[in-house]
Amino acid sequence: MGMVGGGREALIGAVHRIAAQMDGQIELVCGAFSSTPQKSKLSGKDLYLEPERVYGTYRDMIQKEGKLPADERMDFVSIVTPNNMHYPVAMASLDGGFHVACDGPMTVNLDEAQNLERKIEATGKLFCLTHNCTGYPMVKEARDLVAKGRLGKIRRVVVEYPQDWLAERLEASGQKQASWRTDGRFAGVSGCIGDIGCHGHNLAEYITGLRITEVCADLNIFVNGRTLDDDGSVLLRLGDGAKGILWASQVAIGSENALSIRVYGDKGALEWKQEDPNSLIVRWLNKPADVRRTAGPGIGKSAASAARLPAGRTEGYIESFANIYKEFASAMAKAIDGKPVDDSKFDYPKVRDGIRGMFFIDTVVKSSASESKWLEVPE
Amino acid sequence: MGMVGGGREALIGAVHRIAAQMDGQIELVCGAFSSTPQKSKLSGKDLYLEPERVYGTYRDMIQKEGKLPADERMDFVSIVTPNNMHYPVAMASLDGGFHVACDGPMTVNLDEAQNLERKIEATGKLFCLTHNCTGYPMVKEARDLVAKGRLGKIRRVVVEYPQDWLAERLEASGQKQASWRTDGRFAGVSGCIGDIGCHGHNLAEYITGLRITEVCADLNIFVNGRTLDDDGSVLLRLGDGAKGILWASQVAIGSENALSIRVYGDKGALEWKQEDPNSLIVRWLNKPADVRRTAGPGIGKSAASAARLPAGRTEGYIESFANIYKEFASAMAKAIDGKPVDDSKFDYPKVRDGIRGMFFIDTVVKSSASESKWLEVPE
Amino acid sequence: MGMVGGGREALIGAVHRIAAQMDGQIELVCGAFSSTPQKSKLSGKDLYLEPERVYGTYRDMIQKEGKLPADERMDFVSIVTPNNMHYPVAMASLDGGFHVACDGPMTVNLDEAQNLERKIEATGKLFCLTHNCTGYPMVKEARDLVAKGRLGKIRRVVVEYPQDWLAERLEASGQKQASWRTDGRFAGVSGCIGDIGCHGHNLAEYITGLRITEVCADLNIFVNGRTLDDDGSVLLRLGDGAKGILWASQVAIGSENALSIRVYGDKGALEWKQEDPNSLIVRWLNKPADVRRTAGPGIGKSAASAARLPAGRTEGYIESFANIYKEFASAMAKAIDGKPVDDSKFDYPKVRDGIRGMFFIDTVVKSSASESKWLEVPE
Amino acid sequence: MGMVGGGREALIGAVHRIAAQMDGQIELVCGAFSSTPQKSKLSGKDLYLEPERVYGTYRDMIQKEGKLPADERMDFVSIVTPNNMHYPVAMASLDGGFHVACDGPMTVNLDEAQNLERKIEATGKLFCLTHNCTGYPMVKEARDLVAKGRLGKIRRVVVEYPQDWLAERLEASGQKQASWRTDGRFAGVSGCIGDIGCHGHNLAEYITGLRITEVCADLNIFVNGRTLDDDGSVLLRLGDGAKGILWASQVAIGSENALSIRVYGDKGALEWKQEDPNSLIVRWLNKPADVRRTAGPGIGKSAASAARLPAGRTEGYIESFANIYKEFASAMAKAIDGKPVDDSKFDYPKVRDGIRGMFFIDTVVKSSASESKWLEVPE
Repeated sequence: MGMVGGGREALIGAVHRIAAQMDGQIELVCGAFSSTPQKSKLSGKDLYLEPERVYGTYRDMIQKEGKLPADERMDFVSIVTPNNMHYPVAMASLDGGFHVACDGPMTVNLDEAQNLERKIEATGKLFCLTHNCTGYPMVKEARDLVAKGRLGKIRRVVVEYPQDWLAERLEASGQKQASWRTDGRFAGVSGCIGDIGCHGHNLAEYITGLRITEVCADLNIFVNGRTLDDDGSVLLRLGDGAKGILWASQVAIGSENALSIRVYGDKGALEWKQEDPNSLIVRWLNKPADVRRTAGPGIGKSAASAARLPAGRTEGYIESFANIYKEFASAMAKAIDGKPVDDSKFDYPKVRDGIRGMFFIDTVVKSSASESKWLEVPE
Repeated sequence: MGMVGGGREALIGAVHRIAAQMDGQIELVCGAFSSTPQKSKLSGKDLYLEPERVYGTYRDMIQKEGKLPADERMDFVSIVTPNNMHYPVAMASLDGGFHVACDGPMTVNLDEAQNLERKIEATGKLFCLTHNCTGYPMVKEARDLVAKGRLGKIRRVVVEYPQDWLAERLEASGQKQASWRTDGRFAGVSGCIGDIGCHGHNLAEYITGLRITEVCADLNIFVNGRTLDDDGSVLLRLGDGAKGILWASQVAIGSENALSIRVYGDKGALEWKQEDPNSLIVRWLNKPADVRRTAGPGIGKSAASAARLPAGRTEGYIESFANIYKEFASAMAKAIDGKPVDDSKFDYPKVRDGIRGMFFIDTVVKSSASESKWLEVPE
Repeated sequence: MGMVGGGREALIGAVHRIAAQMDGQIELVCGAFSSTPQKSKLSGKDLYLEPERVYGTYRDMIQKEGKLPADERMDFVSIVTPNNMHYPVAMASLDGGFHVACDGPMTVNLDEAQNLERKIEATGKLFCLTHNCTGYPMVKEARDLVAKGRLGKIRRVVVEYPQDWLAERLEASGQKQASWRTDGRFAGVSGCIGDIGCHGHNLAEYITGLRITEVCADLNIFVNGRTLDDDGSVLLRLGDGAKGILWASQVAIGSENALSIRVYGDKGALEWKQEDPNSLIVRWLNKPADVRRTAGPGIGKSAASAARLPAGRTEGYIESFANIYKEFASAMAKAIDGKPVDDSKFDYPKVRDGIRGMFFIDTVVKSSASESKWLEVPE
Repeated sequence: MGMVGGGREALIGAVHRIAAQMDGQIELVCGAFSSTPQKSKLSGKDLYLEPERVYGTYRDMIQKEGKLPADERMDFVSIVTPNNMHYPVAMASLDGGFHVACDGPMTVNLDEAQNLERKIEATGKLFCLTHNCTGYPMVKEARDLVAKGRLGKIRRVVVEYPQDWLAERLEASGQKQASWRTDGRFAGVSGCIGDIGCHGHNLAEYITGLRITEVCADLNIFVNGRTLDDDGSVLLRLGDGAKGILWASQVAIGSENALSIRVYGDKGALEWKQEDPNSLIVRWLNKPADVRRTAGPGIGKSAASAARLPAGRTEGYIESFANIYKEFASAMAKAIDGKPVDDSKFDYPKVRDGIRGMFFIDTVVKSSASESKWLEVPE
């Protein structure tokens, strides 16, 4: 693995490094950690990388790694830069012959997203969108229960993602994360929905197996001086007659990282919370609710194999990324062995999920500006 | 107190009787408990009433009680019939010179609601809408915190009321509650929003002190064969730039009576759940959340005086009604003493709250049928 | 019902009055509410009793009520005085031909308790010890699960009752409740164990159906100036090889009224908390835990019939007393009808439970003072 | 880092490897992963180690690594074998000039523990006992609150560690973990108390800063065929007049890994649960409880610096080990730089904690067998 972005100050870089290496299949061998070459060097030193494999720019990294022997060079590029750099780095990496793991949202606009999809097809390389929420064992259990029909026909989805880190005008203090995430040049057309609402979209579609087909949105800017939404609520129509609500906010005081989902069918319902990720409450029509637990009794194969520890040893945020990387590593291992890879057999988010997310973000922004009630989300 | 409705099979009648009499200010002295006189008699006997004060019809009750000496006759009528009877019984009671307590929703349409308001003004009698949710001590604490500005400027409200008792077609079995609540002739223009969504509306306005001014609604009929909504979600605009979401459902499997509300301001936030009514979580921008408790330390006067028991002795649904009746009894006591009563000094829902609820229900139904995004809620 | 004690300042009197009358079988008709006749009169007036049936002393009440016609006089005496008066009032009431409901602990010492038992046998009157914790529907569900063998052979019980109302020296302020409960003349040989530990004992025996046969206790006085224990922990041996822990405290800051119990068998386990009384968590060896709810699906007959409201309408402390009174009223109704009553068929605590509680308190106090590890609890 | 034990089947080895390497200060360079050399080789291969640094025995590892240049050889040995091997490996490692990290319990008896302490003193090497529970940020917050006097004088500690993995006779199936942990030859004098009760001991002393000075214990063997305790409860006396209860069980059905602690002082109280490790509930005498969160507002320096991620990104079991290793790595870094190290400045468990744990286990076993009530825990 070579990393682009994720230098000293960047939390998410560390998360990806720990997660990717957690299961021993992936090793960080090189990186271009900052747009400032000097900072990149320092970050690489922190990480005990060989100095000659700490690059000043991603272009440099792709070029030079490409010249190394196949068993030495990096196998894929992990992109953890601000959103606006996802696209150029991914395109260059694919062109350079490398697989790509990319933090979400995939790109800052739809054009980029669609170009990227074409490039992936053209190069035949693998692409992983590191939306971590589908990596939690109990999210996999939720999906399995729906897929097996245990909840019956799905009626309603309620998905929320409140945070509070932008409750005040943090970007005015120069805090780097806040600065680029509230700036359309780096973040794209949306702030809150683009940054976290899209995780809600991904989670809802992953668990229900349904597509969000229409939206009716109301985005808000609650903190003065912002130009991008910092909160928004969306009515959803999903396939097969299901309805939903999605609410995301970066200004909801006291909310840390409170992604949650509830899904109601005509036979049962389920509830999952990212901040208590190892429990899944499953409710039934005529019997008491049960509480499934990561690595606990009675859970399906998919959830069971995503747990690393015996029940009661809390697995968290990093492990959810690790599960994404583990699946991606398995797909890459097959590709590296020269075998044909059907990526639909591997349980990690792919370019199509990213494009769906971009369509969602785009349509939500348009809907919020529109007087019409419902806008269709293009496929 | 004389009661109309609330015979043997009707749960809500028993709740009102226990609640009204809990504090010793109110006594049930007569009733017309059923539209079938014989059933009314039996119910009255169950309740150890004097047989001659168990009436076959509400008209009979109003007339005969009116002829009793002032210190003997009932002081007010408590109406716990199906929705469609609220209006005629209330009108007749007021005309008969009695104060009125009436279960929600107040009437089945707006015309009735507005006529009722005029009648109340004309007769000078007191009217209490027994929406119980504002009777919980921790709801009063929530309102106080907002009123004192502790949460700052309100940004967002999330109010939910999922139930599951109509998840299947219970009305087909002849169950009485289900039958009239799913039938427009008895329930009015809306099923779910009319029955429980209006409590969410009442709770949100009570706590925030803001008015819900515009709605964008999507109502659903999930169970085949129904003609009224059994689920619905609504985007809200409130006064002063606040936004909201209201979701109500009678088909959300595993939800018992799960009214809840979260309110987010720019200084703090709060969360309350009817099924855990004695806790109020209050969240802050730069310090840990705190958990206030019924009769616990640090709560305001309004909440403290609404608690009957020392902390940790669970107070519940019945006590919330008792608090409404207690306030209403205090207002009536003043009126009975011949003093002028400013009902705004007493903390119980009044006809204006009922009218606001009717406007809300009506506008939500219209919005759901409309292609326009936002509809204004008339005042 | 005639009440002894429970005047204006006494919370527990109001709880008993509301609870006893909740289901319409019992009516308060007279009382001797205070040891000060003038106070008794005022309390009776508050309660709208006929002035001539508000008595200055319990002796007066028993004598005069005894002379009233059978269909007019009170049927039983409810004793809600400080502990030291339970015995004389109960004895006099039984002698006067009345059934008795008595707040716990039953008496201040074992001699009294045993005399009382003999008196009950001699008079043939019914006696109810109003330990409320066994009145909760989910406690009944717990007992049923154990009785049906669903948990298998019981291994371990963990019962706790922390409170904090005596965390400081409240009695020094003259607060009445604190004054008599910390004074051996009124409270008996123990403070904390006598007041609340005995509820833990009762709850553990009720749910498990096992007897606590041996104890090893360590009582504490944490607040300076006290002479009775305000905290204590006890190792328990129960019948059939089960082990247990009981901890009670009146000085555990932040604990309101936190009676809870966990029972572990070799097939399953359960957990119940008085402050969240409508949920019962049941855990299993090889499947997920389930959460049973008052009036919810899947619960047994005993629990179901103890619920008054549909699921999700919180029932609390008062309803738990009401369930005790309801069972007692059913037994009394049979007795009043002149039928023989086998009180073991009715689900309320009886004199034998009270005696067992007294033996427990007594043995715990002795154990705490002893260097020997285990003391047997006499039967 | 060189590892002894922790081969393919051993969960705890993987936990240590991920944890130790999480912060980039430590790298696994060699190992002797199994008592079967061939298995050790395979494990080393899984881990991509250089084959010549995968050793067949720990003796071999210590000897050969000792001959490597200082900047190449391992700096310390991490011991994750069954309990009975802790002592010989630790002694040999220290003799070989290496620092040592050792899983708990430290040794199988007190003699070994005391010899080990002498050896550490003699060699001047650093020793870390990897009791992970003190690595959680909210445990550090708890300790800080006590140390700052925020809870006042400590009155009572309630510490529990129920699990259920030995609820049936798992060792009969040949499961390796169960086999050695229930066998006195490998586990020492105690099963449950030795394996997990000692964590409760460590946690209680760490948070309160008090010593457990006397115990009164009742150990049980609930599963037929065992020779070591699988459950036990202990009354505790701590320094400064505090009292406590410790309960540990490996047969408490439905309990996963439910270490928890509550500490009550005369000004406040706190509650922490390992299965919800990122919350700390703090209760106060005259104000509402607050809920502190890992990386949340209002927490002290010690807790804040132990968090890796922003609030709401669940940190769990592995991170708790990582925090222990991070502190140990800091101490070792200083030692490797040739500076004098005062290990009391570093926040990880040391040999003295291990010895205290051994004294505790030993005294509890003796107490359980004794008719005397209290036994003193030697220092």
